[in-house]
Amino acid sequence: MKSAIILLSGGLDSATTLYYAKQKGFKTFCLIFDYNQRHKKEIEHAKRIARISKSGFQVIKIRLPWKGSSLLDKKIPLPVNRTMIPDEIPSTYVPARNIIFLSFAASYAESIGAGAIFIGANAIDYSGYPDCRPQFYRAYQAMVNKGMKAGVEGRTIKIYTPLIRKAKAQIIQLGLKLKAPLDLTWSCYGGGAKPCGRCDSCVLRERGFMEARGKRSEVR
Amino acid sequence: MKSAIILLSGGLDSATTLYYAKQKGFKTFCLIFDYNQRHKKEIEHAKRIARISKSGFQVIKIRLPWKGSSLLDKKIPLPVNRTMIPDEIPSTYVPARNIIFLSFAASYAESIGAGAIFIGANAIDYSGYPDCRPQFYRAYQAMVNKGMKAGVEGRTIKIYTPLIRKAKAQIIQLGLKLKAPLDLTWSCYGGGAKPCGRCDSCVLRERGFMEARGKRSEVR
Repeated sequence: MKSAIILLSGGLDSATTLYYAKQKGFKTFCLIFDYNQRHKKEIEHAKRIARISKSGFQVIKIRLPWKGSSLLDKKIPLPVNRTMIPDEIPSTYVPARNIIFLSFAASYAESIGAGAIFIGANAIDYSGYPDCRPQFYRAYQAMVNKGMKAGVEGRTIKIYTPLIRKAKAQIIQLGLKLKAPLDLTWSCYGGGAKPCGRCDSCVLRERGFMEARGKRSEVR
Repeated sequence: MKSAIILLSGGLDSATTLYYAKQKGFKTFCLIFDYNQRHKKEIEHAKRIARISKSGFQVIKIRLPWKGSSLLDKKIPLPVNRTMIPDEIPSTYVPARNIIFLSFAASYAESIGAGAIFIGANAIDYSGYPDCRPQFYRAYQAMVNKGMKAGVEGRTIKIYTPLIRKAKAQIIQLGLKLKAPLDLTWSCYGGGAKPCGRCDSCVLRERGFMEARGKRSEVR
């Protein structure tokens, strides 16, 4: 059985991606990051999703000693009720976050002989992060092919972004179809016990569910 | 004054690279990794070199929960007295090590507005790691340009590999010329209190000093 590493944040997109990989026949190993994110709560959600999906998982602890992102620094206010503008990068951007996450995934993949990495990045209903765009993933793939033993030996560690061109409502519909436990997912950036309803992540989630079902869903 | 991030391991190559960057007029910030390497000793050497060079520095702690490299797992014997063959990748290879290190450097660079990253990678007198070759760095540069805010906004974070095509003896000569504190550097992979003299890193260092000076040097 072929193996895959799944970057699992605990949100809608990564949970759907995990179930997509399972449906494609991969044995799934999840990589969860504790990077001192404001919304640490997502880590427990990710672990629950990994367990219920019967995937292996690892939690990687990262501490970036530099500041500047409102997702890492509670002193910087989180942007709320924002009109998302293409190419505008909000303060929740963490420099090189997906570059770092994927680098651990590449290491994990090669260590266990997995030929695939899945990431739920999305460039439609998203916050404008440059490391969520298709051109970034193409460049990352080329880099991995040059910098790793697998690539040198002619085996590719392939990076899959199955959601990259889907709208949030389509992702939700796919997740429901794949029976991904969307009720266990967590999206809010706020760091509170309940979703704030106003950050980008809450807004995109809410709008996605409304569009997916034509009404507010109980599954939020 | 323009700023640069220097990946500093504590060995000859990175110390020389640091002094090269200083000589080029950069304000230098060193990134040192504690990745549970067998030769942890290098971390203290790196810190000393950063301090003596009057650079800022950060130590990043990383724990890779997967095994398979003799540089991380003391149960795997370290290859010794090896005849280095081009394209043969030894057991000291850590999957995606430089990919991971550079990803933190990219994050650090963007966070402090630095436009340069220096890494002392070398593809001449080296252990055959794929992430030390020029084609890898070209691909990494292209990926950083696509995946970061700086790239999107038309500012490049440039990755410099000034030693990539130098033989070890040339690196030592350059280090001496730049007055890099080569006497403070540490190369041995072995993890002992004294250099083992038999691992790749010791062999390359010894041979480099012999070629650089035509005789054994006191500065080892």
